[in-house]
Amino acid sequence: MSEIRRDPITGRWVIFAVERAQRPSDFALEEREPPVVNCAFCENNESQTPPEIHADRPARSAPNGPGWRMRVVPNKYPALRVEGELAKQGDGVYDRMAGVGAHEVFIEGAAHATSVTALPHDIYRSTIFSYRDRLRDLKKDRRLAYALIFKNVGVRAGASIAHNHSQLIATPVVPITVQQEMTGSKRFFDYRGRCIYCDILRQEKAEKSRMILETPDFAAIVPYAARFPFEIWVVPTRHMSHFEDASDSELESLTDGMLSVLNRLERALGAPPYNYVIHTSPFVDGHLDYYHWHIEIMPRVTMAAGFEWGTGFYINPVLPEEAAKFLCNARHGQ
Amino acid sequence: MSEIRRDPITGRWVIFAVERAQRPSDFALEEREPPVVNCAFCENNESQTPPEIHADRPARSAPNGPGWRMRVVPNKYPALRVEGELAKQGDGVYDRMAGVGAHEVFIEGAAHATSVTALPHDIYRSTIFSYRDRLRDLKKDRRLAYALIFKNVGVRAGASIAHNHSQLIATPVVPITVQQEMTGSKRFFDYRGRCIYCDILRQEKAEKSRMILETPDFAAIVPYAARFPFEIWVVPTRHMSHFEDASDSELESLTDGMLSVLNRLERALGAPPYNYVIHTSPFVDGHLDYYHWHIEIMPRVTMAAGFEWGTGFYINPVLPEEAAKFLCNARHGQ
Repeated sequence: MSEIRRDPITGRWVIFAVERAQRPSDFALEEREPPVVNCAFCENNESQTPPEIHADRPARSAPNGPGWRMRVVPNKYPALRVEGELAKQGDGVYDRMAGVGAHEVFIEGAAHATSVTALPHDIYRSTIFSYRDRLRDLKKDRRLAYALIFKNVGVRAGASIAHNHSQLIATPVVPITVQQEMTGSKRFFDYRGRCIYCDILRQEKAEKSRMILETPDFAAIVPYAARFPFEIWVVPTRHMSHFEDASDSELESLTDGMLSVLNRLERALGAPPYNYVIHTSPFVDGHLDYYHWHIEIMPRVTMAAGFEWGTGFYINPVLPEEAAKFLCNARHGQ
Repeated sequence: MSEIRRDPITGRWVIFAVERAQRPSDFALEEREPPVVNCAFCENNESQTPPEIHADRPARSAPNGPGWRMRVVPNKYPALRVEGELAKQGDGVYDRMAGVGAHEVFIEGAAHATSVTALPHDIYRSTIFSYRDRLRDLKKDRRLAYALIFKNVGVRAGASIAHNHSQLIATPVVPITVQQEMTGSKRFFDYRGRCIYCDILRQEKAEKSRMILETPDFAAIVPYAARFPFEIWVVPTRHMSHFEDASDSELESLTDGMLSVLNRLERALGAPPYNYVIHTSPFVDGHLDYYHWHIEIMPRVTMAAGFEWGTGFYINPVLPEEAAKFLCNARHGQ
């Protein structure tokens, strides 16, 4: 079982995923494209993954066999496992606990495609709806404090398998970055009595200079202080603290919005590696006036180096207004 | 001039370095090894860098000509510039200021070498002493709040030039990561009345399982909650909050210690890309009982992906005790 340790200075948590461990001498410094032949996520290779937790498949098709559109399975090399007790303990000045949590994979499409924009619309729709289902289900486990849903696309964005997929990692503690966002939003709310994300939406809708897409349910903007060139935030219009509280019609809109934005990103930058991450509230919190879920899309076209790691300060060579203009013009192809 | 913007939620700062900007369409997704011919940092190419701020060169040799051992020059494409006023201003819900600061480069050695372990000892010693000199000098500028000294080695660690060099970026605000470390250390001190780094040193010296190098002046350990495989912290034995307060004999020891640790890292992992960062206290603070400067060395053998960016939670496949054992055994070559 893996182990979770806490840095005693910053409060940052690290998962030591010993089951994923290579021997130290195995560290390959070359980046390799993942293999395409015998892909574990392709149809007919269902036996290569652990048994499915959920699948979008015709009513009469058998679980863990072919014929599906989208599957959710436990990660074969999980960072955290559902079984076991947390066993929190001190270790001198340090703290640690057992690696209890969940690590799941959303396999998007039975055919080997490497971009969600290449998928039939209903497969990505099914994925977005499954995000909500899995959050609602895991929320019932009282040992879990948070679940992060994210997608890594391309080797440089950390993807080890090219076949379209997303991941979910549920943790027994609220991660530090989430805590910082919650604290910052709460500070603003306590002072102004308004949600800062709602305020941002109002300003962006008025100024338009960083707006990429505006629909009744969602806005996609390049954030004012974007860390990365062409970073994009997709923010729901309605104030909601938890992703799992989104309605069916909002998830339909989100599917369309995400596909439109990702399509624009690919046209503009030629299928760049990217990560996206759903930022949502911890399980334990009920509806919050001060936090507003959203999705952050981070293209990996620059490298974070010593300065970024040392300071949390970022250097971005592209102004958000320039990035937004470029992404908007990419609408018609180029 | 570049612009600094603040994320209104987390308080994180981003430098928009427009003078470093490529056109959006220029983003090259291929990683390229930097060119070796006509390297701007090699001897006889001094005219390719801005005029030197400091140089370790024989007394009779002319500035900005050949014959030097180590030079400090302004970065040719600076993220921040020394000239100008901060001009802090609001922008609706947002904040920004002009990109005032400093961005300097330490060029280590006139010959084209790509590892400090390949340098004559006195060149790296001269670099370490220059770190202190530059901090002491920039500290006099009241507009500057902090200076970060760091080294990027290898393309995957963000180095765009292969010739041995370090960098310094001085900022008009205290970076968020530094603030978090200061806050965490202060919280521990307020509760226990002791410096947490001193406590860590005591525990590591007793346990030995994560110790790589122990000298009278320094210890090198794999931290208990290492974010990255083979991460190493080099911590001075004497409690000091500011790097620039280190004595000459401590800097001599640091030179030997860093070379020994980096040599071990290269033997163990075969010249991996890495970053190192000096963690020290903000300029404005006088001597602090609760903070303890140190150097963090982060080999780049794994990729940070969506999960890490989304949570500040890290997944590390190598236990610190295993990494320490491996690095210790690398002492005798392999």
